[in-house]
Order: sequence, then C-alpha cells, then structure tokens
Amino acid sequence: MFMQRAIQLAKKGIGHTSPNPSVGAVLVKDGQIVGEGWHKKYGGPHAEVMAIDKAKFGVQGATMYVTLEPCCHFGKTPPCTDLLVSSGIRKVVIGMKDSFPKVYGKGYDILKKNNIEVEYISKNSVDYKEINIFMQSYFKWMTTGLPYVTLKAGVSLDGRVATKTGQSQWITGEKARKDARIERSMCDAVLVGSGTVRADNPELASHGKFKKKNLLRVIIDPTLDLDTNLDVFRDQNVFVVCTNLASEKNKNKFQKAMVEFKSFGPKKVSLKKLLQYLGKEYNIQHLYVEGGSGTHGYFVDDALLDPLLVDRVLFYIAPKIIGGVSAVPVVGGRGVGGVDKSLILNTVKTEMVGEDVKYQGYKNLY
Amino acid sequence: MFMQRAIQLAKKGIGHTSPNPSVGAVLVKDGQIVGEGWHKKYGGPHAEVMAIDKAKFGVQGATMYVTLEPCCHFGKTPPCTDLLVSSGIRKVVIGMKDSFPKVYGKGYDILKKNNIEVEYISKNSVDYKEINIFMQSYFKWMTTGLPYVTLKAGVSLDGRVATKTGQSQWITGEKARKDARIERSMCDAVLVGSGTVRADNPELASHGKFKKKNLLRVIIDPTLDLDTNLDVFRDQNVFVVCTNLASEKNKNKFQKAMVEFKSFGPKKVSLKKLLQYLGKEYNIQHLYVEGGSGTHGYFVDDALLDPLLVDRVLFYIAPKIIGGVSAVPVVGGRGVGGVDKSLILNTVKTEMVGEDVKYQGYKNLY
Repeated sequence: MFMQRAIQLAKKGIGHTSPNPSVGAVLVKDGQIVGEGWHKKYGGPHAEVMAIDKAKFGVQGATMYVTLEPCCHFGKTPPCTDLLVSSGIRKVVIGMKDSFPKVYGKGYDILKKNNIEVEYISKNSVDYKEINIFMQSYFKWMTTGLPYVTLKAGVSLDGRVATKTGQSQWITGEKARKDARIERSMCDAVLVGSGTVRADNPELASHGKFKKKNLLRVIIDPTLDLDTNLDVFRDQNVFVVCTNLASEKNKNKFQKAMVEFKSFGPKKVSLKKLLQYLGKEYNIQHLYVEGGSGTHGYFVDDALLDPLLVDRVLFYIAPKIIGGVSAVPVVGGRGVGGVDKSLILNTVKTEMVGEDVKYQGYKNLY
Repeated sequence: MFMQRAIQLAKKGIGHTSPNPSVGAVLVKDGQIVGEGWHKKYGGPHAEVMAIDKAKFGVQGATMYVTLEPCCHFGKTPPCTDLLVSSGIRKVVIGMKDSFPKVYGKGYDILKKNNIEVEYISKNSVDYKEINIFMQSYFKWMTTGLPYVTLKAGVSLDGRVATKTGQSQWITGEKARKDARIERSMCDAVLVGSGTVRADNPELASHGKFKKKNLLRVIIDPTLDLDTNLDVFRDQNVFVVCTNLASEKNKNKFQKAMVEFKSFGPKKVSLKKLLQYLGKEYNIQHLYVEGGSGTHGYFVDDALLDPLLVDRVLFYIAPKIIGGVSAVPVVGGRGVGGVDKSLILNTVKTEMVGEDVKYQGYKNLY
C-alpha cells in the first residue's frame, strides 16, 4: 500500500528528471504517512530529501518506502544515504536496486552498516513489475549507454498510416492524438524521417504539463535535402542525421541555418551509432520514433539483426479500414520472409483511448 | 438478474438454431427459478416450451423471462403464445420484439388480450444491448433477406496476413486460432477466395461442440480454375461462386466432380447478388468471410458503396511485426483516397486471447 503511494509519486516525475530516474518516497510512522516526496526535475532534490523535508512530525523511528535504492554518491546533490542515516529513520523498504554503477547495491550496504533495517520488495510483486516498466529507459541507458526506443504510430485497423494517395490526417481520434503527444513529451527526444517532415511540416513540440520541456527533435535526412524554413527547424533544439551522400551545397545550407547535423555512415545511417551518439552526447534516455512507414521499416529491419534497436511499440489503432494494395503500411522497409522471423513482442497492454485502442507491446526488458 | 440467466441460456443455442433465433427462457415463482429452457436446435422445441416442461412445480401464477417475443404462428412447432395462455402463467417479461413479420408485436398482443401481464425490458438496459448483439444475424436476415457478414482475419500488429514471400502460418497463436474456429462454427457459412484455397488447402470445417454441424463452404473462384480434389471439395456441402468468364471446360470439370457452382456476374462477382442468393436459397443468416487480402479488399471496396455488405470485423492481432513494403496487407483491393472515406466501425470490443488481441468492431446495427 505504501509502496503503491511511492509509485504514484514517482510517476509524477516521469519525463521531467532525465537523465536522473523518476523516484517516489513515502515516510510512515505508526501506520500513518507523515511525509511524501518525488524527484521533480533533473538536478533538483531527490525524493528521499523531499519526503524528509515535508515530514510533519519528527522522522525518528519512521520507515521510508522508496521506489529506487537511495543514492550514496555526490552527484548534483549530496548522497541520500547520509541524510537517511543522520535523520534517525529506522527502516527503508526499496522497490529496486539502482543500475547506476556508483550506487548498485552500495546504497543498500551503507544503510545496513549504519544499523538501518533495509529490504527490497519481492521481484514477483505487482509493485516491482510496475516500477520496472517505468524505469526501463533509465535502466537501458545506464546499462548499455543507448536510449530506450519506442516506435509510435497512429494506424488504421488494417495497419495503414496513409491512404494510397498519401493522405493521413487524421486516422486516429483527438483523444488518441492528445495521448500520443503526452507520450512523446515524456521522452527525451523525438525522431522522424525527412518524408514525414516534408509531408506534414510537423512541430514535434512537447505538450500539456511538459509544454516548456526541451524535447530534442531528431530528423533523419540522409542527403540534407530538407528546406530549413520548415517548422521543425524553428529553434536550435534539433539534430539532423545524414550520410556521406549529403552534398557540400546542402551541408552549407544547414550550416548557414545553424542547424546541427552529423553523418552516421557512408550511404546508410547506422542506427546503432546514432543511438550511441544520442545516449552519450545528448544524454537521451528515451527516444520516441514517430515514423513514417520508411523510418519504422528501417528500425524494424535493423532491430531484427540487433535487438537493442527497438524496445517498445506504441500503436494507436483506429476503428477504420483504409484498404487498398498500395496504401501506406505502418512498417515498410524490407520485412521478413518467414513469419517466425518477425519482430516479436513479449508483453502486451491494451486500453481504449476514445474510440481507438492504445496498444503497447514490449520487446526487451532491462 | 432473471433476464441475465435467460440470456445465458439463449447463448447456449447460438450457432445451432439458424434460421431460427437463439432464445432463452426462465420461469420464476416466489422469487425462485422453477424452470429453464433454451432453443437447442432448428426445428426443436422453443425455449418457452422447454422451460415449462422442465418446471419442477406448477407454473400457475409464475413469471416467464424470455429473451425474444414468444411466437404466435405455426412454424415447425405450434405457437408458444397458446401454451403460455393455457399454462396459467401470470406475467411475461420480454427481452426483444421479434423482427419476424408474422410475430412482430403480435405475440405481445395475444398474451395481453388473454390477461397475461406483458412487458418489454428497457431499450437502454445492459440486457437489451446484450441480446441485441447476439441477435444481429437473425435481425438482418429477417429484415433484409441478406446474411450478416463478419470479416475475419488473423493479422500481425502491422496489419499483414502474409510475409513478402507469402508465408502466413502461423501469425496468431494456438488459442486465437482455436477461438476463430469456434467463431466460424457459430456461423452458417464460411467464405474464402480461390487464392486462399490454393495457398493453404484449408478444410474450413466446424469445430468443438459444433463438430457435426453442416457449415456451408462458399468459395469465390471467378474462372473455376481450382482443382476439385482439394480438401474443401471433400463433400457436397460447398458452393462455388464464379463469373461468366468461367470456361466450358472448367464448368464441366466442376459438374463432373458434382460441385455446385453459379455465376454472379459477367466479369466480376456481384457480392450483393451473392448475399441475396445465400440468404434466400441456403437460409444463410451469418456468413463468415475468412479472406484472403483480395477477398477482404473486395468486400471492403464494395461495402463503401453498399453498407449492407460488411457488418462486423473480427481481427485477431498478433504481437508481431512482419514489415516490408511488399508483405501482404489484410485488406487489399482498391482502398480509399481520403481517410474520411474509410470503412468506419462504430462499436469496438477487445479482449486478450492468449497473446493475441481479439478485436471486434461493428459497422451496422439492425
């Protein structure tokens, strides 16, 4: 029950804390919650600190429920373990071990050595599974250096993202489109192909309570052919991915417009190298791939060879049939020959969002 | 509560009673169920008769809950209204008015005139909506003479029914395939195109508790090119649909093999005429269209011009991405130009069947 509350609090921070994890903490004394906290934004106080600060009465002898192992190193803030030890808290219940090498198991050990009772919740519990899901992008980035990749699309029931004439607005309903913009805003970067930019001139902005968030826009434009006056280039929070095929003339055009670009291959973008770069240079933990049939096909084709390239599929399925042999499929590319070679998702969640089905499938678990 | 039980009983008959409707009845005395019945098979006793027969104590003064208006004409059995009147039942609660012209409202009137208290349940009730859904095929056939059409497919998440090399076995899991065979068996006829017959040599049999059911197999083979030794022609319970393009030679082949066939157009099958024929000559109330990209495309294209051609879409969506620009889409055909011209479903139900999503969408309500 108390861990459920800590999870609720942690979820308030999702999308705001990257590259830090979203954490929630609850302080309990005599069966009552006396303090609550969550990590509000990168660089800000950790959940544990906020819970202790907010505690109405003394925390002496209290139990803390915290979704992630408390940190034990100096980062943007001092170690939480020091605070916990000095505060007089009696017990700490932890949702998950932190994958961050400087903490991994060490936070637990320090608390233990300082006579605080410590326990991890069971790996079979519902709470554990819930925390594990929303921590995936942090875990992947921590352990591999690569962003967690969500493939997102709004599709018709028959799997199309545009009709045979290329029309695509709107396949899904207003509620689903709004939900998708919030899902986008919870990530650190959004990626589309030049085809989508050319066809829709999208803003790719963050929305709702994330409106002011600095979402990196990543555009795959192999030859740097795009017009730099398009909306997506409205500020410098954009990164264009090309290949060595881009002409000097086009490079000059982008330089002149002060749009950052970089080549990731002689003729074809290496998605693995791109992910490595985004993870390392931009601290991107969660990449939202909002293809385009071509872009989705590209990711799926490469993910069949390197499983780290796609982690989660998020499709909004509209109750519409577009039909036609030449309508645009949601995943283009080369595709597979045998059904047994397809990209298989292991865990599926569905819910209705307005008239559309929100389908989430997970490929990897970190 | 008692109507819910009557609904449960009615559902036991689904798939067995056609062209009669599936009906359930419950007899209640002093707040206790004293008798239950349902229409078990075409020509057999009606639900009302069975409930009275099964009643443990006298039915004098009892209330009957019955999902459909009791019949008042001589069909395969005598009118139920006569029995109800003579039995001494005090009150009858009816789920729905019968669309059958010989009964429509008249069953109600006869009971009323004979001093039985009669009432219909509210059209806004959950019970009404539930009965309405499983009576759709009966209502459509009764009011239009046409079979109710379910488009069924097992698809990948990206809307493909085969890979670029034509491989299709198996996209969905064992549980979904089993469920789909039961859904097929609840219908009166199953339709596929010659492409599917050629590629998969399917049996198109009925299954489970419907194993012995005589399911009509309808094959669209415009030129009568199929080999008559294929499994689908194993007995005479098959009907082949062609056009005038079929050669004399091919017609002779089918005649010799004693396979019934008929042309429904000079160069192109008229689906409307086919449905009229199946409804009238074969008493088909519910047709299960188990395409084939081409067959589904054909139905969808024509349904955009004539809404009576598709009523329900039943897709089993597998957690797999097949991808590839040339993989086979679940709905081929011409398709639409504008998204607003697509085939729109009004009501959607989803549930998990094994790892697959069972998606049911309704286009028409009769």
